Amino acid sequence: MLTKMEVEQRIIRLQHALRTKGIDGALLIYPIDVYYFSGTRQNATLWVPAEGNPRLLVRKSLSRAKEESLIEATGPFPASKEFPNLFGEEIRTIGITFDVLPVQQYNYYAKLLPGREFVDIAGINRELRSVKSAWELDRMRASGAALSAVFEQVPGFLKTGMREVDLAAEFEYRLRKAGGEGYVRMRAFNQELFQGLAVSATACHPGFFDGPVTGRGLSAASPHGASTEEIVTNAPVLVDYTGVFDGYIVDMTRMFVVGTLAPELEQAFATARAIQDYVAINLKPGVVCEELFFKAAEMADAAGLGQNFMGAPGENAKFVGHGVGLELDEFPVLAQGFKVPLQIGQTVAIEPKFVLPGLGVIGIENTFSVSEQGGEKITLLADDVVYL
Amino acid sequence: MLTKMEVEQRIIRLQHALRTKGIDGALLIYPIDVYYFSGTRQNATLWVPAEGNPRLLVRKSLSRAKEESLIEATGPFPASKEFPNLFGEEIRTIGITFDVLPVQQYNYYAKLLPGREFVDIAGINRELRSVKSAWELDRMRASGAALSAVFEQVPGFLKTGMREVDLAAEFEYRLRKAGGEGYVRMRAFNQELFQGLAVSATACHPGFFDGPVTGRGLSAASPHGASTEEIVTNAPVLVDYTGVFDGYIVDMTRMFVVGTLAPELEQAFATARAIQDYVAINLKPGVVCEELFFKAAEMADAAGLGQNFMGAPGENAKFVGHGVGLELDEFPVLAQGFKVPLQIGQTVAIEPKFVLPGLGVIGIENTFSVSEQGGEKITLLADDVVYL
Repeated sequence: MLTKMEVEQRIIRLQHALRTKGIDGALLIYPIDVYYFSGTRQNATLWVPAEGNPRLLVRKSLSRAKEESLIEATGPFPASKEFPNLFGEEIRTIGITFDVLPVQQYNYYAKLLPGREFVDIAGINRELRSVKSAWELDRMRASGAALSAVFEQVPGFLKTGMREVDLAAEFEYRLRKAGGEGYVRMRAFNQELFQGLAVSATACHPGFFDGPVTGRGLSAASPHGASTEEIVTNAPVLVDYTGVFDGYIVDMTRMFVVGTLAPELEQAFATARAIQDYVAINLKPGVVCEELFFKAAEMADAAGLGQNFMGAPGENAKFVGHGVGLELDEFPVLAQGFKVPLQIGQTVAIEPKFVLPGLGVIGIENTFSVSEQGGEKITLLADDVVYL
Repeated sequence: MLTKMEVEQRIIRLQHALRTKGIDGALLIYPIDVYYFSGTRQNATLWVPAEGNPRLLVRKSLSRAKEESLIEATGPFPASKEFPNLFGEEIRTIGITFDVLPVQQYNYYAKLLPGREFVDIAGINRELRSVKSAWELDRMRASGAALSAVFEQVPGFLKTGMREVDLAAEFEYRLRKAGGEGYVRMRAFNQELFQGLAVSATACHPGFFDGPVTGRGLSAASPHGASTEEIVTNAPVLVDYTGVFDGYIVDMTRMFVVGTLAPELEQAFATARAIQDYVAINLKPGVVCEELFFKAAEMADAAGLGQNFMGAPGENAKFVGHGVGLELDEFPVLAQGFKVPLQIGQTVAIEPKFVLPGLGVIGIENTFSVSEQGGEKITLLADDVVYL
């Protein structure tokens, strides 16, 4: 469980950021943000003034929020008439996360607090959250160990003739027994993920997912992940799963094959590993995010695989790594346009992958933390393709 | 897969509703709404003018959208300069779903289309979606049959000494093998669900979830569903799961016990069944939603269980049933304030439950469709408590 000191540090950093931007306070409403700054993910609104004590206003459940919250929890939630009284006249500018707050919610709070200016603190929040404390890094390592232990079991249950969804079921069963929490939070507006991907033939199918691989899924309504297609010999099987423990997500991918791989796939895998290793070695504070993506794309080009990098030709995703933590799509992103330097304690899933239509998808993914010595690998398991 | 006629009917109903409200068109952006009106859940924006042909503007993946969409799919997504040209001068009022659209997205479209008025069509969309076509009812029945078949297997794997999460793992494994799609869509802003609940002792723990039972979950970050507590004899085990097939969600609950139940629990279960049966018989077009909730609450009161109805005393949820379909929390809701009449083809999960602190949670849930003859049960399985 979160410690009082941990929450205090988070609040101090948030208050500092608010004062720097001239914002009088943050009204946090999105569940995982409320959890991050209070220790409870009950249905509640958290008010953090730029100076002074935060307050947690709980809708449901007050008793559980009182048990968990490291900030004083009060309830019942104030009536519309009472709510404005909680905000002194000196509060003029209120920060809200515009990236996730629906318009209806925004209008509700704007009506409750007339005359105040609401400003977007989505960027502040995401940047603060991206840097993990020592306590958080321990949680991430524990998630990494637990997820890796499930990956280690794959050779015991992967067989040809089983459907992709059977492989998914076996993996997810063991992940759940290991205490996996299952629900994977994503912040981006139009993304959805059910735990991960266990895909072979369908890995080449393009899809909506903002990543190199989507999978065909089971229907047009759920067009993602495993399908009912069967796993056959000599075809790469990509297992890309998240593990969620204590709320902290790690992300990793390993390749399996029953039989052998075509030389083009073996060469692509060697390139993916070289890219991963290059990016990992350079996962140091001060290194600019987009530079790592450019270099990765260059290495793919040099191997003659530029068209196939991070997606089928024409459907390529434009990144080589993404932040992970309480959400799967955190900052930083190793992508064009991210001109910011890496910071110590950020945690990044590096996932160079190649889609070779007709042959299959191949690549590698591990979660690392940024350190002075380069990326510390959190998902401790050999990277090699596992031949069965 | 969705049929062309099905999508045409949906668009006609939407256009009719738009014209009735004097709205010039709907800009649909939320993935499941785009799916409902087009047949594809790729990353795309759907423009439905009040008169004329809809257009699907695809971000990713265009090739998959072309394969699936029953409306002409175009791409790449228009550049910011081109986008306004798609909207004639006669388009003044644009409907958007304010319930799910983040402020950042809203601001993006408002900036692209200056001078237009944006209005909330959340209610229109939810009401249209609540009434299922014959095609959709067939999908719901198939989901009901598949989920029921998993419930039937519970006596084969439920044992004392296993942890709640072990029971969850066994259930979810079989659900997945049966083709369950896993990802459960919820529309409400601050709700999250990972498939369902397999809970016994922790069923009494209050929580954020807007339902009678939350479960303790595995951490404060994921405070919902199964925990690591062990299942013991003579305690009710509540298994409440969704099944998602072809995108369509059904919801059901059955009770299991190894041994016997305290008489208070048996009496509460009999009351829950009587409430369910009363509501189901009255699930007819024209019946006002809140009346069914009032009557259910009255029956709970009459049994001396008013304080325990739909939650622990003081933490009671204020409904007895909720719409289901492509999302778990659809219209209609059988709750105070829902003064609207039921319509033929709406699908509702009726779930009277009682929380008796110290004893456990007990109740029943089935998904029904509204018909002239009363509710048609979609989750076909006996309601009785299963004694093991």
